[in-house]
Amino acid sequence: MGRDMRWWGWGDPAHRSAPPAHALAWLEGALGPLGDAPSGPVSLEEVRLGEPALPAALRDRLVAAVGADAVRDDREARVLHAAGKSYPDLVRQRAGDCEGAPDAVVLPAAHDEVRAVLEACAEAGAAVVPFGGGTSVVGGVEPLRGPFGAVVSLDLRRLDALEGLDERSHTAVVQAGVRGPELERRLADRGFTLGHFPQSFEYVSIGGCVATRSAGQASTGYGRIDDMVLGVRCAAPAGDLHLPARPASAAGPELRELVVGSEGCLGVITAAALRVRPAPAERRYEGFMFPTFAAGAEALRLMEQQGVAPDVARLSDEHETQMSFALAAEGRLKGEIARRYLRRRHVEGGCLAIAGWEGDADRVQARRKAGAAVLGACGGVALGRGPGRVWAAGRFHGPYLRDDLLDRGVMVETVETAAQWSELFTLYRAVGDALREHAPLVLCHISHLYPSGASLYFTFLARQDREAPIEQWRRAKAAACDAIVAAGGTITHHHGVGRDHAPWMPAEVGTTGIAALRALKAELDPRGIMNPGKLLPEPAPTPS
Amino acid sequence: MGRDMRWWGWGDPAHRSAPPAHALAWLEGALGPLGDAPSGPVSLEEVRLGEPALPAALRDRLVAAVGADAVRDDREARVLHAAGKSYPDLVRQRAGDCEGAPDAVVLPAAHDEVRAVLEACAEAGAAVVPFGGGTSVVGGVEPLRGPFGAVVSLDLRRLDALEGLDERSHTAVVQAGVRGPELERRLADRGFTLGHFPQSFEYVSIGGCVATRSAGQASTGYGRIDDMVLGVRCAAPAGDLHLPARPASAAGPELRELVVGSEGCLGVITAAALRVRPAPAERRYEGFMFPTFAAGAEALRLMEQQGVAPDVARLSDEHETQMSFALAAEGRLKGEIARRYLRRRHVEGGCLAIAGWEGDADRVQARRKAGAAVLGACGGVALGRGPGRVWAAGRFHGPYLRDDLLDRGVMVETVETAAQWSELFTLYRAVGDALREHAPLVLCHISHLYPSGASLYFTFLARQDREAPIEQWRRAKAAACDAIVAAGGTITHHHGVGRDHAPWMPAEVGTTGIAALRALKAELDPRGIMNPGKLLPEPAPTPS
Repeated sequence: MGRDMRWWGWGDPAHRSAPPAHALAWLEGALGPLGDAPSGPVSLEEVRLGEPALPAALRDRLVAAVGADAVRDDREARVLHAAGKSYPDLVRQRAGDCEGAPDAVVLPAAHDEVRAVLEACAEAGAAVVPFGGGTSVVGGVEPLRGPFGAVVSLDLRRLDALEGLDERSHTAVVQAGVRGPELERRLADRGFTLGHFPQSFEYVSIGGCVATRSAGQASTGYGRIDDMVLGVRCAAPAGDLHLPARPASAAGPELRELVVGSEGCLGVITAAALRVRPAPAERRYEGFMFPTFAAGAEALRLMEQQGVAPDVARLSDEHETQMSFALAAEGRLKGEIARRYLRRRHVEGGCLAIAGWEGDADRVQARRKAGAAVLGACGGVALGRGPGRVWAAGRFHGPYLRDDLLDRGVMVETVETAAQWSELFTLYRAVGDALREHAPLVLCHISHLYPSGASLYFTFLARQDREAPIEQWRRAKAAACDAIVAAGGTITHHHGVGRDHAPWMPAEVGTTGIAALRALKAELDPRGIMNPGKLLPEPAPTPS
Repeated sequence: MGRDMRWWGWGDPAHRSAPPAHALAWLEGALGPLGDAPSGPVSLEEVRLGEPALPAALRDRLVAAVGADAVRDDREARVLHAAGKSYPDLVRQRAGDCEGAPDAVVLPAAHDEVRAVLEACAEAGAAVVPFGGGTSVVGGVEPLRGPFGAVVSLDLRRLDALEGLDERSHTAVVQAGVRGPELERRLADRGFTLGHFPQSFEYVSIGGCVATRSAGQASTGYGRIDDMVLGVRCAAPAGDLHLPARPASAAGPELRELVVGSEGCLGVITAAALRVRPAPAERRYEGFMFPTFAAGAEALRLMEQQGVAPDVARLSDEHETQMSFALAAEGRLKGEIARRYLRRRHVEGGCLAIAGWEGDADRVQARRKAGAAVLGACGGVALGRGPGRVWAAGRFHGPYLRDDLLDRGVMVETVETAAQWSELFTLYRAVGDALREHAPLVLCHISHLYPSGASLYFTFLARQDREAPIEQWRRAKAAACDAIVAAGGTITHHHGVGRDHAPWMPAEVGTTGIAALRALKAELDPRGIMNPGKLLPEPAPTPS
């Protein structure tokens, strides 16, 4: 355990990458000088880590519940579970600051073992932080203790079964710890796909996706994870919530929608029944270039509202397009795209869109024809499959690039939101303006379409303030979140709330909404052991 | 007020209908002799009604909140709000039993007036029963007092504004009291449709549809109301819950999904932001005949899972098909269908399907072609547009027929459910078997398709036990509900829970689910004034 993901950064420890010289030169042009040498993380042995504070009696109960091998308090396990993969997480991990690591990592292998762990922790008064793939970029798996003396990271990787695949009902029952690629492999063996491919796909757990209302890169076609969840099984300290797969119901408020997005604060999702689809025979991703972001957005809106949107629909603004070209290997993406576009339009710049269709060959062709007609009518110039292949090859590699940039002292972070189409450009400008006060480079793309609106995904980059990197990040993040809320966007379209967005939840759901969520938590988790400090803002201090 | 709907039955008081002689003869063949003369309802003056028990101080506050004209306690208003439109409701109303009528009917005209009414009732300790179109068939608007001495029916008809139509975002903000036809008229003026057409369309309010998770006859294409709701405004006794229109969000549990389906038990929905679509240029409904219910169901499943389902997709079983033909005017539906089918297949019987496509002409044609190919491959014989026209002409008339049958002493009731495709026929047989113990005629159709499953809608008929009609109904209803739960179906696919399904809610959502709903209610409605006795089962008596 632990060797499958770098503890100080993203992904496969064997992965090697470095930004090419021309990319660094371009970045220095935009951000200013980055310094001479890359600065990597400290070694695992140098990481500062407190003594595990798990009471012996609780440890004994946990061992009785899950077995001795499944209660870990070694350095590696604790460091790996000390943080997720947000920018501040990585800054702290790389610097060897793991003072907040969990006192133990517990690895139950079944729903009933999860229940036993919760009961033991509730009785002993220890916080429990569910841990799936550990890929949260909003502090969702940070092992905060809340008011408790100890905290346990509950790693769900051993709940790794595909419990059932109902081929007739296109429904799979998947345990929470199954990782994205493993699920797709098992489904593909039977001719199916889930179609859920977030950027973190290679490491996400299904339970984590459900708990955070994740949306994948093909969500325009396949839907968000919340569209796929037909049933859930959740172990809450107060009892089990088991909602079996149902196609639809009018039986009152939809409790499934309370578990989805609950981020481990109400209980632990141990399995989900998910809609699956026949695996596509063909995946066709293409590039289109638009003269402006607005023209491209109009094309996306019209396709979606006319029912002819592709399964993958992405549009970069001018800034993101420019940086994509600049960072790409010389003579590959940049050359190919620029050559074709310039030849046709005799202009430089513009906005790159990626449109992807999946399915059997006939349907792909028919849908591509209908979509491309709209793209063309809005000024999009077809660039062929080259840019689509480049995008697909790198679609999960963004987090590696972030590590490379961190090596070079670059702050790089993302914020994402969504709004109605009529409000989208007001939101785009407001967040961009707010971020540019803190970062010279602000990029944006639209990547998830809905009939009523779309998502906006911002990336911002600045030279890291090496003296106070967390404070620098916090200021930029807060400015973006304030701007989002003021402009009517949702505080998060698919990253979730976690620790980082919790202060903006009252703006999102209102005072009464917060009260409703707190009432639910008090009922399902009466001692408040589940993932303290996440999702809900800290209550105002009670006057003494 | 009150003249728009018969107080003792369905619909337009000017409507006149009577089953033709051949239909009655066929029914007598199936059910036994029905007696000589129709027996209508008592007159309004004969209705038994208690004195209104509204405390004077509360009445004064209500008058101050909404105006004297909007606090009604006359006979007509009270009788019209004494019940919904379920079979037991109508049996009691027709017999003049309105002892349970509300003490007053209050008609606020704005969200803040609703809030003022709730505050007045909460302080005075009076139950509040939200009343939209009054079409509930599960006892959802029955003015139960719960532990309180008085009950107010809160009629939302004056919240009748289309607050806004965002054409760019395909989103309409609609006040709760707007009726189905009025909304469609106003949207059509701007080139849009909601596409929500339950059988009760002519009388439903939008707030009622949202509060009960309604599904319309075209839900396979347009989605259920819960798929259309992008935002809600709800006045709860503890505060307002205002969730503005958003295309999607990952900001925690989806509180919108708690308001949708809350059936007036948490608060009063005063407005909803709804997804709308361009009004279709063409509506094409056609009939297809299948040799068996199973063959037809297979066609529906394959169309839905292949993404080529029509917008309206209905399939009657052999019993329902037979009764449709028998009750239709001689020489019309029956003659046309039977003639063609028999000519082609040289068989009698079979199952009638209606498939309807809506949109612009090209898309309708292309989608019809794709769908008809699947229907044909599964053994469906195309009957052309004749049966489609007949279905469309009568699509909202079922409730009138029920009144005619009540005149003749026939018990007629419906129950509906949904399940995964792999469980659908087990459920179909179990519910049918249970109902046939209580009713000689049991009919069923599938009318709402999902990738993972479908709905089942049962109609059952028997000669009324004139001595104890409610008890007769209760036995049949309980048998059906028990069978549904035992076979894994949802207790309701689109009628809602109300009073009648509340006892089965623990089976639906489990003990922990019930506890979660009760905690929410305690938070949002701390005195418990909102729609007592609905949605949640009565708590077990506390031991004293």
